Amino acid sequence: MLEKVNIEKISSGASETVDDVVIAEVPLTIFINDEELITLLCTPDKMEQLAIGFLYSEGLINSKDEISFMNLEEKNNIFRLETREPLEFEKSEVFGRRVITSGCGKGATFFDYRDFSQCRKIENKVEIKPEEVLELMKEFQQKSELFKKTGGVHAAALCSPKEIILFSEDLGRHNAIDKIFGEALLSDISTEDKIILTTGRISSEILIKVAKRGVPAIVSRSAPTDLAIKIAKELGIWLVGFARGERMNIYS
Amino acid sequence: MLEKVNIEKISSGASETVDDVVIAEVPLTIFINDEELITLLCTPDKMEQLAIGFLYSEGLINSKDEISFMNLEEKNNIFRLETREPLEFEKSEVFGRRVITSGCGKGATFFDYRDFSQCRKIENKVEIKPEEVLELMKEFQQKSELFKKTGGVHAAALCSPKEIILFSEDLGRHNAIDKIFGEALLSDISTEDKIILTTGRISSEILIKVAKRGVPAIVSRSAPTDLAIKIAKELGIWLVGFARGERMNIYS
Repeated sequence: MLEKVNIEKISSGASETVDDVVIAEVPLTIFINDEELITLLCTPDKMEQLAIGFLYSEGLINSKDEISFMNLEEKNNIFRLETREPLEFEKSEVFGRRVITSGCGKGATFFDYRDFSQCRKIENKVEIKPEEVLELMKEFQQKSELFKKTGGVHAAALCSPKEIILFSEDLGRHNAIDKIFGEALLSDISTEDKIILTTGRISSEILIKVAKRGVPAIVSRSAPTDLAIKIAKELGIWLVGFARGERMNIYS
Repeated sequence: MLEKVNIEKISSGASETVDDVVIAEVPLTIFINDEELITLLCTPDKMEQLAIGFLYSEGLINSKDEISFMNLEEKNNIFRLETREPLEFEKSEVFGRRVITSGCGKGATFFDYRDFSQCRKIENKVEIKPEEVLELMKEFQQKSELFKKTGGVHAAALCSPKEIILFSEDLGRHNAIDKIFGEALLSDISTEDKIILTTGRISSEILIKVAKRGVPAIVSRSAPTDLAIKIAKELGIWLVGFARGERMNIYS
Protein backbone atom coordinates (compact mmCIF):
# COMPACT_ATOMS: atom_id res chain seq x y z
CA MET A 1 0.00 0.00 0.00
CA LEU A 2 3.06 2.24 0.20
CA GLU A 3 5.54 3.15 -2.49
CA LYS A 4 9.05 4.37 -1.93
CA VAL A 5 9.94 7.61 -3.71
CA ASN A 6 13.02 9.73 -3.86
CA ILE A 7 12.28 13.34 -3.02
CA GLU A 8 14.00 16.64 -2.47
CA LYS A 9 13.18 17.87 1.01
CA ILE A 10 13.45 21.59 1.67
CA SER A 11 13.55 22.75 5.24
CA SER A 12 14.38 26.30 6.36
CA GLY A 13 16.16 26.96 3.09
CA ALA A 14 18.34 23.84 3.14
CA SER A 15 17.76 21.11 0.57
CA GLU A 16 18.50 17.38 0.76
CA THR A 17 17.60 14.32 -1.28
CA VAL A 18 15.92 11.60 0.81
CA ASP A 19 13.83 8.45 0.49
CA ASP A 20 10.23 8.87 1.47
CA VAL A 21 7.04 6.81 1.24
CA VAL A 22 3.80 7.84 -0.39
CA ILE A 23 0.43 6.16 -0.64
CA ALA A 24 -0.11 3.84 -3.61
CA GLU A 25 -3.02 4.59 -5.94
CA VAL A 26 -4.31 2.09 -8.48
CA PRO A 27 -7.28 1.93 -10.86
CA LEU A 28 -9.64 -0.96 -9.97
CA THR A 29 -11.93 -1.90 -12.85
CA ILE A 30 -15.15 -3.71 -12.02
CA PHE A 31 -16.80 -6.11 -14.47
CA ILE A 32 -20.26 -7.47 -13.76
CA ASN A 33 -21.31 -10.50 -15.78
CA ASP A 34 -18.54 -9.74 -18.28
CA GLU A 35 -19.58 -6.15 -18.79
CA GLU A 36 -17.25 -3.34 -17.74
CA LEU A 37 -19.03 -1.13 -15.23
CA ILE A 38 -16.67 1.40 -13.69
CA THR A 39 -13.11 2.08 -12.64
CA LEU A 40 -12.45 3.25 -9.11
CA LEU A 41 -9.19 4.81 -8.02
CA CYS A 42 -8.15 3.32 -4.72
CA THR A 43 -5.46 2.18 -2.35
CA PRO A 44 -4.56 -1.45 -3.16
CA ASP A 45 -5.86 -3.12 -0.01
CA LYS A 46 -9.18 -4.90 0.59
CA MET A 47 -10.06 -4.39 -3.06
CA GLU A 48 -12.68 -7.18 -3.13
CA GLN A 49 -14.36 -5.56 -0.16
CA LEU A 50 -14.23 -2.19 -1.91
CA ALA A 51 -15.79 -3.54 -5.11
CA ILE A 52 -18.54 -5.36 -3.23
CA GLY A 53 -19.09 -2.40 -0.89
CA PHE A 54 -19.35 0.01 -3.81
CA LEU A 55 -21.89 -2.17 -5.62
CA TYR A 56 -23.83 -2.64 -2.38
CA SER A 57 -23.79 1.09 -1.55
CA GLU A 58 -25.01 1.93 -5.04
CA GLY A 59 -27.82 -0.59 -4.80
CA LEU A 60 -26.55 -2.76 -7.66
CA ILE A 61 -26.39 -5.78 -5.40
CA ASN A 62 -28.50 -6.24 -2.31
CA SER A 63 -27.34 -9.46 -0.70
CA LYS A 64 -24.48 -11.93 -0.70
CA ASP A 65 -26.79 -14.59 -2.11
CA GLU A 66 -26.96 -12.81 -5.46
CA ILE A 67 -23.25 -13.47 -6.03
CA SER A 68 -22.34 -16.68 -7.86
CA PHE A 69 -18.65 -15.90 -8.45
CA MET A 70 -16.14 -13.21 -7.64
CA ASN A 71 -12.47 -12.85 -8.42
CA LEU A 72 -9.80 -10.18 -8.14
CA GLU A 73 -7.05 -10.34 -10.75
CA GLU A 74 -4.31 -8.77 -8.71
CA LYS A 75 -1.90 -8.23 -11.60
CA ASN A 76 -4.13 -5.93 -13.59
CA ASN A 77 -6.51 -4.81 -10.84
CA ILE A 78 -9.63 -6.24 -12.42
CA PHE A 79 -12.50 -7.40 -10.25
CA ARG A 80 -15.03 -9.76 -11.82
CA LEU A 81 -18.42 -10.46 -10.33
CA GLU A 82 -20.99 -12.89 -11.62
CA THR A 83 -24.51 -12.97 -10.32
CA ARG A 84 -27.12 -15.73 -10.28
CA GLU A 85 -29.63 -13.53 -12.08
CA PRO A 86 -28.97 -10.56 -14.37
CA LEU A 87 -29.02 -7.40 -12.26
CA GLU A 88 -31.79 -4.82 -12.59
CA PHE A 89 -29.53 -2.22 -14.14
CA GLU A 90 -28.38 -4.60 -16.87
CA LYS A 91 -31.94 -4.97 -18.11
CA SER A 92 -32.38 -1.36 -19.13
CA GLU A 93 -30.82 -0.35 -22.41
CA VAL A 94 -29.39 2.85 -21.02
CA PHE A 95 -28.54 2.37 -17.39
CA GLY A 96 -30.40 5.29 -15.95
CA ARG A 97 -31.84 8.69 -16.10
CA ARG A 98 -28.59 10.62 -15.99
CA VAL A 99 -26.09 8.97 -18.23
CA ILE A 100 -22.59 10.21 -18.21
CA THR A 101 -19.43 9.29 -20.08
CA SER A 102 -16.33 8.02 -18.42
CA GLY A 103 -14.73 11.26 -19.44
CA CYS A 104 -17.46 13.33 -17.98
CA GLY A 105 -17.89 11.66 -14.65
CA LYS A 106 -14.35 12.08 -13.48
CA GLY A 107 -14.25 13.07 -9.88
CA ALA A 108 -17.91 13.81 -10.06
CA THR A 109 -20.44 13.20 -7.40
CA PHE A 110 -24.02 12.54 -8.28
CA PHE A 111 -26.99 13.37 -6.17
CA ASP A 112 -30.48 12.14 -6.36
CA TYR A 113 -33.17 13.06 -3.91
CA ARG A 114 -34.82 9.71 -4.53
CA ASP A 115 -31.84 8.29 -2.84
CA PHE A 116 -32.49 10.23 0.32
CA SER A 117 -36.17 9.37 0.28
CA GLN A 118 -35.32 5.69 -0.04
CA CYS A 119 -33.55 5.86 3.31
CA ARG A 120 -35.91 4.89 6.06
CA LYS A 121 -35.89 6.51 9.45
CA ILE A 122 -33.39 4.65 11.61
CA GLU A 123 -35.39 3.01 14.40
CA ASN A 124 -32.62 0.83 15.79
CA LYS A 125 -30.37 2.33 18.41
CA VAL A 126 -26.92 1.89 19.80
CA GLU A 127 -26.15 3.01 23.33
CA ILE A 128 -22.78 4.63 23.74
CA LYS A 129 -21.34 7.09 26.25
CA PRO A 130 -19.23 10.09 25.20
CA GLU A 131 -16.18 8.64 26.96
CA GLU A 132 -16.62 5.41 24.98
CA VAL A 133 -16.70 7.41 21.73
CA LEU A 134 -13.47 9.17 22.63
CA GLU A 135 -11.87 5.88 23.65
CA LEU A 136 -12.83 4.36 20.27
CA MET A 137 -11.48 7.40 18.43
CA LYS A 138 -8.19 7.09 20.28
CA GLU A 139 -7.85 3.44 19.22
CA PHE A 140 -8.96 4.42 15.70
CA GLN A 141 -6.24 7.04 15.42
CA GLN A 142 -3.61 4.60 16.67
CA LYS A 143 -4.67 2.06 14.06
CA SER A 144 -4.21 4.57 11.24
CA GLU A 145 -0.64 3.61 10.53
CA LEU A 146 -0.82 4.51 6.85
CA PHE A 147 -1.94 8.01 7.65
CA LYS A 148 0.93 8.44 10.06
CA LYS A 149 3.42 7.26 7.46
CA THR A 150 2.09 9.14 4.46
CA GLY A 151 -0.37 11.76 5.64
CA GLY A 152 -2.40 10.79 2.63
CA VAL A 153 -5.24 8.46 3.52
CA HIS A 154 -8.60 8.28 5.15
CA ALA A 155 -9.63 5.57 7.55
CA ALA A 156 -13.02 4.14 8.48
CA ALA A 157 -14.16 1.64 11.09
CA LEU A 158 -17.22 -0.29 12.16
CA CYS A 159 -17.50 -0.53 15.93
CA SER A 160 -19.55 -1.75 18.80
CA PRO A 161 -19.57 0.66 21.77
CA LYS A 162 -16.68 -1.35 23.19
CA GLU A 163 -14.41 -2.13 20.25
CA ILE A 164 -13.42 -1.70 16.63
CA ILE A 165 -14.66 -4.65 14.60
CA LEU A 166 -13.66 -3.71 11.04
CA PHE A 167 -11.05 -1.19 9.94
CA SER A 168 -10.03 0.10 6.52
CA GLU A 169 -7.88 2.75 4.90
CA ASP A 170 -8.03 4.33 1.48
CA LEU A 171 -7.07 7.52 -0.26
CA GLY A 172 -10.80 8.22 -0.69
CA ARG A 173 -13.14 8.68 2.26
CA HIS A 174 -15.98 7.09 0.26
CA ASN A 175 -13.82 4.09 -0.57
CA ALA A 176 -12.78 3.55 3.04
CA ILE A 177 -16.43 3.32 4.08
CA ASP A 178 -17.38 1.12 1.11
CA LYS A 179 -14.58 -1.28 2.12
CA ILE A 180 -16.15 -1.55 5.56
CA PHE A 181 -19.64 -2.25 4.21
CA GLY A 182 -18.29 -4.71 1.64
CA GLU A 183 -16.44 -6.62 4.33
CA ALA A 184 -19.48 -6.55 6.61
CA LEU A 185 -21.65 -8.00 3.81
CA LEU A 186 -19.16 -10.74 2.93
CA SER A 187 -18.56 -11.64 6.59
CA ASP A 188 -22.21 -11.49 7.65
CA ILE A 189 -21.56 -8.75 10.21
CA SER A 190 -24.64 -6.69 11.02
CA THR A 191 -24.31 -2.92 10.66
CA GLU A 192 -27.63 -1.84 12.19
CA ASP A 193 -26.41 -2.02 15.79
CA LYS A 194 -23.01 -0.45 15.14
CA ILE A 195 -21.18 2.87 14.87
CA ILE A 196 -19.15 4.14 11.91
CA LEU A 197 -15.96 6.06 12.58
CA THR A 198 -14.32 8.14 9.87
CA THR A 199 -11.38 10.50 9.58
CA GLY A 200 -13.10 12.37 6.75
CA ARG A 201 -15.62 15.15 6.47
CA ILE A 202 -19.24 14.06 6.64
CA SER A 203 -20.99 15.29 3.51
CA SER A 204 -24.53 14.31 2.50
CA GLU A 205 -23.21 11.43 0.43
CA ILE A 206 -21.35 9.88 3.32
CA LEU A 207 -24.40 10.29 5.53
CA ILE A 208 -26.69 8.66 2.95
CA LYS A 209 -24.22 5.81 2.46
CA VAL A 210 -24.29 5.11 6.19
CA ALA A 211 -28.07 5.55 6.42
CA LYS A 212 -28.62 2.96 3.68
CA ARG A 213 -26.93 0.39 5.91
CA GLY A 214 -29.12 1.33 8.85
CA VAL A 215 -26.20 2.50 10.97
CA PRO A 216 -27.56 4.61 13.84
CA ALA A 217 -24.39 6.60 14.64
CA ILE A 218 -21.47 8.17 12.80
CA VAL A 219 -18.46 9.86 14.38
CA SER A 220 -15.82 11.86 12.55
CA ARG A 221 -12.64 13.61 13.54
CA SER A 222 -13.54 16.31 10.98
CA ALA A 223 -16.50 18.52 10.16
CA PRO A 224 -19.99 17.74 8.82
CA THR A 225 -21.84 19.85 6.25
CA ASP A 226 -25.21 21.48 6.95
CA LEU A 227 -26.93 19.12 4.49
CA ALA A 228 -25.49 16.07 6.24
CA ILE A 229 -26.75 17.42 9.57
CA LYS A 230 -30.25 18.02 8.14
CA ILE A 231 -30.45 14.49 6.76
CA ALA A 232 -29.09 13.01 10.00
CA LYS A 233 -31.79 14.80 12.00
CA GLU A 234 -34.47 13.72 9.55
CA LEU A 235 -33.39 10.08 9.71
CA GLY A 236 -32.59 9.94 13.40
CA ILE A 237 -28.87 9.33 13.06
CA TRP A 238 -26.51 10.41 15.83
CA LEU A 239 -23.90 12.62 14.16
CA VAL A 240 -20.70 13.57 15.96
CA GLY A 241 -17.88 15.69 14.53
CA PHE A 242 -14.47 16.91 15.66
CA ALA A 243 -14.07 13.97 18.03
CA ARG A 244 -10.47 14.48 19.09
CA GLY A 245 -8.69 14.14 22.40
CA GLU A 246 -11.23 14.99 25.10
CA ARG A 247 -13.64 16.90 22.86
CA MET A 248 -16.47 16.27 20.47
CA ASN A 249 -19.42 18.10 18.91
CA ILE A 250 -22.84 16.45 18.74
CA TYR A 251 -24.64 17.85 15.69
CA SER A 252 -27.71 15.62 15.69
CA MET B 1 -21.52 29.66 2.52
CA LEU B 2 -21.90 29.05 6.25
CA GLU B 3 -24.91 27.81 8.16
CA LYS B 4 -25.53 28.32 11.84
CA VAL B 5 -26.30 25.17 13.82
CA ASN B 6 -27.03 24.45 17.42
CA ILE B 7 -24.77 21.75 18.82
CA GLU B 8 -23.92 19.99 22.02
CA LYS B 9 -20.24 20.48 22.75
CA ILE B 10 -18.54 17.95 24.97
CA SER B 11 -15.20 18.85 26.46
CA SER B 12 -13.42 16.88 29.17
CA GLY B 13 -16.70 15.31 30.25
CA ALA B 14 -18.65 18.59 30.52
CA SER B 15 -21.48 19.28 28.10
CA GLU B 16 -22.91 22.59 26.89
CA THR B 17 -25.27 23.70 24.14
CA VAL B 18 -23.72 26.32 21.85
CA ASP B 19 -24.17 27.94 18.45
CA ASP B 20 -21.65 26.87 15.86
CA VAL B 21 -21.19 27.29 12.11
CA VAL B 22 -20.81 24.54 9.53
CA ILE B 23 -20.13 24.62 5.83
CA ALA B 24 -23.17 24.79 3.55
CA GLU B 25 -23.63 22.02 0.98
CA VAL B 26 -26.05 22.30 -1.94
CA PRO B 27 -26.81 20.23 -5.04
CA LEU B 28 -26.03 22.16 -8.24
CA THR B 29 -27.78 20.68 -11.28
CA ILE B 30 -26.31 21.42 -14.70
CA PHE B 31 -28.48 21.54 -17.83
CA ILE B 32 -26.85 21.77 -21.25
CA ASN B 33 -29.12 22.78 -24.09
CA ASP B 34 -32.14 21.89 -21.94
CA GLU B 35 -30.90 18.43 -21.12
CA GLU B 36 -30.06 17.52 -17.54
CA LEU B 37 -26.45 16.42 -17.36
CA ILE B 38 -25.32 16.00 -13.78
CA THR B 39 -25.73 17.22 -10.23
CA LEU B 40 -22.66 18.28 -8.30
CA LEU B 41 -22.62 18.70 -4.55
CA CYS B 42 -20.82 21.89 -3.67
CA THR B 43 -20.40 24.90 -1.47
CA PRO B 44 -22.70 27.69 -2.71
CA ASP B 45 -20.08 30.15 -3.94
CA LYS B 46 -18.78 30.74 -7.46
CA MET B 47 -21.25 28.20 -8.78
CA GLU B 48 -21.15 29.48 -12.38
CA GLN B 49 -17.38 29.10 -12.31
CA LEU B 50 -17.75 25.60 -10.89
CA ALA B 51 -20.21 24.54 -13.59
CA ILE B 52 -18.07 25.97 -16.39
CA GLY B 53 -14.86 24.61 -14.84
CA PHE B 54 -16.37 21.16 -14.49
CA LEU B 55 -17.54 21.09 -18.12
CA TYR B 56 -14.15 22.41 -19.24
CA SER B 57 -12.20 19.88 -17.15
CA GLU B 58 -14.29 17.05 -18.52
CA GLY B 59 -13.76 18.19 -22.09
CA LEU B 60 -17.43 18.93 -22.75
CA ILE B 61 -16.65 22.52 -23.63
CA ASN B 62 -13.30 23.71 -24.93
CA SER B 63 -13.56 27.48 -25.20
CA LYS B 64 -15.65 30.41 -24.05
CA ASP B 65 -16.75 31.03 -27.65
CA GLU B 66 -18.85 27.88 -27.65
CA ILE B 67 -21.14 29.37 -25.01
CA SER B 68 -24.16 31.33 -26.28
CA PHE B 69 -25.99 31.67 -22.95
CA MET B 70 -25.48 30.80 -19.32
CA ASN B 71 -27.59 31.39 -16.24
CA LEU B 72 -27.58 30.34 -12.61
CA GLU B 73 -31.01 30.10 -10.98
CA GLU B 74 -29.95 30.79 -7.44
CA LYS B 75 -33.20 29.77 -5.81
CA ASN B 76 -33.13 26.17 -6.96
CA ASN B 77 -29.43 25.84 -7.76
CA ILE B 78 -29.87 25.13 -11.45
CA PHE B 79 -27.24 26.15 -13.94
CA ARG B 80 -28.27 26.36 -17.59
CA LEU B 81 -25.81 26.49 -20.43
CA GLU B 82 -26.61 26.89 -24.09
CA THR B 83 -24.03 26.41 -26.78
CA ARG B 84 -23.83 27.71 -30.35
CA GLU B 85 -23.47 24.20 -31.74
CA PRO B 86 -24.66 20.92 -30.22
CA LEU B 87 -21.79 19.45 -28.19
CA GLU B 88 -20.00 16.29 -29.28
CA PHE B 89 -21.36 14.22 -26.42
CA GLU B 90 -24.93 15.14 -27.28
CA LYS B 91 -24.57 13.59 -30.71
CA SER B 92 -24.01 10.05 -29.50
CA GLU B 93 -27.09 8.15 -28.49
CA VAL B 94 -25.54 6.80 -25.34
CA PHE B 95 -23.05 9.30 -24.01
CA GLY B 96 -20.05 7.05 -23.76
CA ARG B 97 -18.43 3.76 -23.25
CA ARG B 98 -19.06 3.46 -19.57
CA VAL B 99 -22.56 4.56 -18.83
CA ILE B 100 -23.62 4.78 -15.27
CA THR B 101 -26.84 5.68 -13.50
CA SER B 102 -27.14 8.57 -11.16
CA GLY B 103 -27.61 6.01 -8.42
CA CYS B 104 -24.54 4.10 -9.40
CA GLY B 105 -22.11 6.92 -9.82
CA LYS B 106 -22.49 8.39 -6.40
CA GLY B 107 -19.19 9.45 -4.98
CA ALA B 108 -17.52 7.57 -7.76
CA THR B 109 -14.44 8.54 -9.62
CA PHE B 110 -13.86 7.37 -13.13
CA PHE B 111 -10.53 6.75 -14.68
CA ASP B 112 -9.59 6.41 -18.26
CA TYR B 113 -6.07 5.98 -19.49
CA ARG B 114 -7.02 7.76 -22.71
CA ASP B 115 -7.38 10.77 -20.54
CA PHE B 116 -3.81 10.59 -19.40
CA SER B 117 -2.55 10.00 -22.91
CA GLN B 118 -4.44 13.07 -24.11
CA CYS B 119 -2.34 15.20 -21.81
CA ARG B 120 0.64 16.52 -23.66
CA LYS B 121 4.02 16.96 -22.08
CA ILE B 122 4.14 20.37 -20.44
CA GLU B 123 6.76 22.38 -22.30
CA ASN B 124 5.99 25.75 -20.78
CA LYS B 125 7.73 26.67 -17.56
CA VAL B 126 7.26 28.89 -14.58
CA GLU B 127 10.27 30.02 -12.57
CA ILE B 128 9.70 30.11 -8.87
CA LYS B 129 12.02 29.90 -5.87
CA PRO B 130 11.26 27.71 -2.84
CA GLU B 131 10.92 30.80 -0.62
CA GLU B 132 8.35 32.24 -3.04
CA VAL B 133 6.36 28.98 -2.83
CA LEU B 134 6.33 29.14 0.95
CA GLU B 135 5.35 32.80 0.87
CA LEU B 136 2.42 31.99 -1.47
CA MET B 137 1.35 29.12 0.79
CA LYS B 138 1.37 31.42 3.80
CA GLU B 139 -0.91 33.90 2.02
CA PHE B 140 -3.03 30.97 0.77
CA GLN B 141 -3.55 29.69 4.31
CA GLN B 142 -4.46 33.14 5.54
CA LYS B 143 -7.06 33.49 2.82
CA SER B 144 -8.75 30.23 3.83
CA GLU B 145 -11.18 31.85 6.18
CA LEU B 146 -13.87 29.25 5.65
CA PHE B 147 -11.55 26.49 6.68
CA LYS B 148 -10.61 28.33 9.81
CA LYS B 149 -14.27 28.82 10.71
CA THR B 150 -15.56 25.37 9.87
CA GLY B 151 -12.65 23.01 9.40
CA GLY B 152 -14.61 21.60 6.52
CA VAL B 153 -13.44 22.92 3.19
CA HIS B 154 -10.68 22.74 0.65
CA ALA B 155 -9.15 25.75 -1.04
CA ALA B 156 -7.41 26.18 -4.37
CA ALA B 157 -5.61 29.10 -5.99
CA LEU B 158 -4.06 30.12 -9.28
CA CYS B 159 -0.85 32.09 -8.78
CA SER B 160 2.01 33.80 -10.48
CA PRO B 161 5.33 33.37 -8.61
CA LYS B 162 4.56 36.67 -6.88
CA GLU B 163 0.87 36.59 -6.03
CA ILE B 164 -2.43 34.77 -5.80
CA ILE B 165 -4.62 35.67 -8.77
CA LEU B 166 -7.69 33.47 -8.27
CA PHE B 167 -8.87 31.83 -5.07
CA SER B 168 -11.72 29.44 -4.34
CA GLU B 169 -13.10 27.27 -1.59
CA ASP B 170 -15.35 24.24 -1.68
CA LEU B 171 -16.12 21.15 0.33
CA GLY B 172 -14.65 19.12 -2.52
CA ARG B 173 -11.03 19.42 -3.57
CA HIS B 174 -12.01 18.70 -7.20
CA ASN B 175 -14.65 21.41 -7.09
CA ALA B 176 -12.26 24.01 -5.68
CA ILE B 177 -9.90 23.46 -8.62
CA ASP B 178 -12.73 23.40 -11.18
CA LYS B 179 -13.91 26.77 -9.81
CA ILE B 180 -10.45 28.17 -10.51
CA PHE B 181 -10.32 26.86 -14.07
CA GLY B 182 -13.89 27.98 -14.76
CA GLU B 183 -13.08 31.49 -13.56
CA ALA B 184 -9.85 31.54 -15.56
CA LEU B 185 -11.76 30.55 -18.72
CA LEU B 186 -14.51 33.12 -18.20
CA SER B 187 -12.02 35.88 -17.34
CA ASP B 188 -9.50 35.06 -20.08
CA ILE B 189 -6.71 34.37 -17.59
CA SER B 190 -4.01 32.08 -18.94
CA THR B 191 -3.15 29.01 -16.86
CA GLU B 192 -0.08 27.80 -18.74
CA ASP B 193 2.32 30.15 -16.99
CA LYS B 194 0.87 29.76 -13.53
CA ILE B 195 0.99 27.60 -10.39
CA ILE B 196 -1.91 25.81 -8.74
CA LEU B 197 -2.07 25.70 -4.94
CA THR B 198 -4.34 23.25 -3.14
CA THR B 199 -5.04 22.24 0.42
CA GLY B 200 -6.03 18.74 -0.69
CA ARG B 201 -4.24 15.53 -1.47
CA ILE B 202 -2.90 15.24 -5.00
CA SER B 203 -4.34 12.10 -6.55
CA SER B 204 -3.99 11.16 -10.23
CA GLU B 205 -7.27 12.86 -11.02
CA ILE B 206 -6.18 16.18 -9.60
CA LEU B 207 -2.88 15.92 -11.45
CA ILE B 208 -4.61 15.14 -14.76
CA LYS B 209 -7.06 18.01 -14.24
CA VAL B 210 -4.15 20.41 -13.81
CA ALA B 211 -2.18 18.88 -16.71
CA LYS B 212 -5.11 19.38 -19.07
CA ARG B 213 -4.87 23.11 -18.45
CA GLY B 214 -1.15 23.09 -19.16
CA VAL B 215 -0.22 24.21 -15.65
CA PRO B 216 3.49 23.51 -15.08
CA ALA B 217 3.46 23.41 -11.26
CA ILE B 218 1.20 22.24 -8.44
CA VAL B 219 1.80 22.73 -4.73
CA SER B 220 -0.19 21.13 -1.92
CA ARG B 221 -0.10 21.33 1.82
CA SER B 222 -0.94 17.60 1.86
CA ALA B 223 0.39 14.40 0.30
CA PRO B 224 0.49 13.17 -3.28
CA THR B 225 -0.12 9.55 -4.36
CA ASP B 226 2.47 7.45 -6.19
CA LEU B 227 0.35 7.50 -9.37
CA ALA B 228 0.16 11.31 -9.30
CA ILE B 229 3.94 11.47 -8.93
CA LYS B 230 4.45 9.08 -11.87
CA ILE B 231 2.17 11.12 -14.12
CA ALA B 232 3.79 14.39 -13.00
CA LYS B 233 7.24 13.03 -13.91
CA GLU B 234 5.95 11.76 -17.24
CA LEU B 235 4.39 15.10 -18.13
CA GLY B 236 7.09 17.32 -16.70
CA ILE B 237 5.00 18.91 -13.99
CA TRP B 238 6.67 20.24 -10.85
CA LEU B 239 4.89 18.55 -7.93
CA VAL B 240 5.35 19.79 -4.37
CA GLY B 241 3.66 18.38 -1.28
CA PHE B 242 3.56 19.14 2.44
CA ALA B 243 4.36 22.80 1.83
CA ARG B 244 3.88 24.15 5.34
CA GLY B 245 5.76 26.71 7.37
CA GLU B 246 9.40 26.52 6.30
CA ARG B 247 9.22 23.06 4.75
CA MET B 248 8.20 21.38 1.52
CA ASN B 249 8.80 18.12 -0.36
CA ILE B 250 9.58 18.17 -4.08
CA TYR B 251 8.30 14.92 -5.58
CA SER B 252 8.84 15.65 -9.26
